[in-house]
Amino acid sequence: MDTQTNFLDRLFDAGLLIDTGVEGLYGRSGQFEEVIASFERLIDRVGGGDGAEALRFPPGMNRAYFETSGYMKSFPQLAGTVHSFCGNELDHVSLLKCMDADEDWTKEQRATDIVLTPAACYPLYPTVAKRGPIANSGALFDLQSYCFRHEPSTDPARQQLFRMREYVCMGTEKHVTDFRQSWMDRGLKMMEEVGLPVEIDIANDPFFGRAGKMLANNQRDQNLKFELLIPITSVAKPTACMSFNYHQDAFGTKWGLNLEDGSVAHTACVGFGLERIALALFHHHGLDVKAWPEKVRKALWG
Amino acid sequence: MDTQTNFLDRLFDAGLLIDTGVEGLYGRSGQFEEVIASFERLIDRVGGGDGAEALRFPPGMNRAYFETSGYMKSFPQLAGTVHSFCGNELDHVSLLKCMDADEDWTKEQRATDIVLTPAACYPLYPTVAKRGPIANSGALFDLQSYCFRHEPSTDPARQQLFRMREYVCMGTEKHVTDFRQSWMDRGLKMMEEVGLPVEIDIANDPFFGRAGKMLANNQRDQNLKFELLIPITSVAKPTACMSFNYHQDAFGTKWGLNLEDGSVAHTACVGFGLERIALALFHHHGLDVKAWPEKVRKALWG
Repeated sequence: MDTQTNFLDRLFDAGLLIDTGVEGLYGRSGQFEEVIASFERLIDRVGGGDGAEALRFPPGMNRAYFETSGYMKSFPQLAGTVHSFCGNELDHVSLLKCMDADEDWTKEQRATDIVLTPAACYPLYPTVAKRGPIANSGALFDLQSYCFRHEPSTDPARQQLFRMREYVCMGTEKHVTDFRQSWMDRGLKMMEEVGLPVEIDIANDPFFGRAGKMLANNQRDQNLKFELLIPITSVAKPTACMSFNYHQDAFGTKWGLNLEDGSVAHTACVGFGLERIALALFHHHGLDVKAWPEKVRKALWG
Repeated sequence: MDTQTNFLDRLFDAGLLIDTGVEGLYGRSGQFEEVIASFERLIDRVGGGDGAEALRFPPGMNRAYFETSGYMKSFPQLAGTVHSFCGNELDHVSLLKCMDADEDWTKEQRATDIVLTPAACYPLYPTVAKRGPIANSGALFDLQSYCFRHEPSTDPARQQLFRMREYVCMGTEKHVTDFRQSWMDRGLKMMEEVGLPVEIDIANDPFFGRAGKMLANNQRDQNLKFELLIPITSVAKPTACMSFNYHQDAFGTKWGLNLEDGSVAHTACVGFGLERIALALFHHHGLDVKAWPEKVRKALWG
């Protein structure tokens, strides 16, 4: 905890992150953004030859799709629904009275059709499903968006609004597990290039409640999730900066993603936690980018 | 309306925007994003010499700051508050039952400390206030973020989640009104460079209700808001693609922004509606970027 707060304070003092008064919600300096942009260009160079289709979704998604996804079953505590005032002028007068009296004015807000995107790939599956069958040779997508997770924390590597870059592969089991393996190899090499100490380990998602423990164990037993870990605010508990997820045919079945041969598509996704990678770079190479090792600067800025 | 739906359908068909099933919530193709990125580089070239401090806030802001801003007084219908599930395992069981029965499960969501950012500059004012007095020579900031406005529409130029690039100036009345005038001149020149027909007109914000009419008239009478208009889905009602706002000392007083000489800072902001500008380019030059006039391509891609 101390190491976390200490690193966060140093980031605030250096102006790299900007305190907004809410834990896990920070502004970024131009320098911080430049590090993220340069790492994204590195991702582009590594993945660019694969012919992925680039799509960019906004930070919110269709609530109906979100409901179908089952996210509220697994991670209800992390989701963020978007609510609005839908009243008339009289309701508005009450609302303002409520605010003036410092009472809770948010109870009258009504859910809109929009939910904050929990992971960059969530809006993709229904989008691809609407296009019809996927070529037997598979499909590959390149995504990035701000994502929301309601988990206030003083660990700068656990933000409520953060960016995730993702590649998503759809195809046969062999196709998508090969894709996942290739990005585990690439991820290790990329982090080595930018001078970050790294290990890959089996992992599980933060499923809610006691029933969630079983889901987590099941996920680990089946090797469905790996994470690339880099120590940032703790050596004992290094931070997941990439994740490599094999969904088997779960998403294919849920969304009706079929290959042209009629079989259900398997899917896998590889995600980069862009803020976490930037924080790992600042933690390991110092807060002054100009003083970073020549090798690292070259890998990032050529 | 027909023109709007027609243009939106053409954008969907061309794959430039992606239908998500919610009006005003769209995915973007890589090509669409490249147009936005290239226009942002044009902004950088035009504004880059001014020495603005770049800051990037996420698409959500501190609810306490949002409340202080007075947004719910003026535009309650447009705001989006972020709500989360805060219950225990039993509550979770009820939640899932509710979802299974297709009932409204969102009533139990509780407001978090986060509200979606309504305009890129909203998180800036309290941030600058915390830094202490502003140099008498003024301060200049460069912002960009996704913004939310709850106004579902079939007009592709009226999206619920869209990006706004902004410059914000703080200083004396003369300093900030000169800043605003210089960007009106620059805006006209930039749009001419990229081949867009444009006019600048006096404008007002969409204040809520009958009382809002007075605020709007007042804003117009005092020349506080101008918009740069480009026809996109209607010639009779061209779309505001930039806005030029002088806040007098209203934000300075609200947030305690003072110059070193003790006077209250005046503020002004200039905003680019990035999706709207991209849509104006696609509308006027066609959906195939490769077929855009050479002059326009040169202005955007050099």
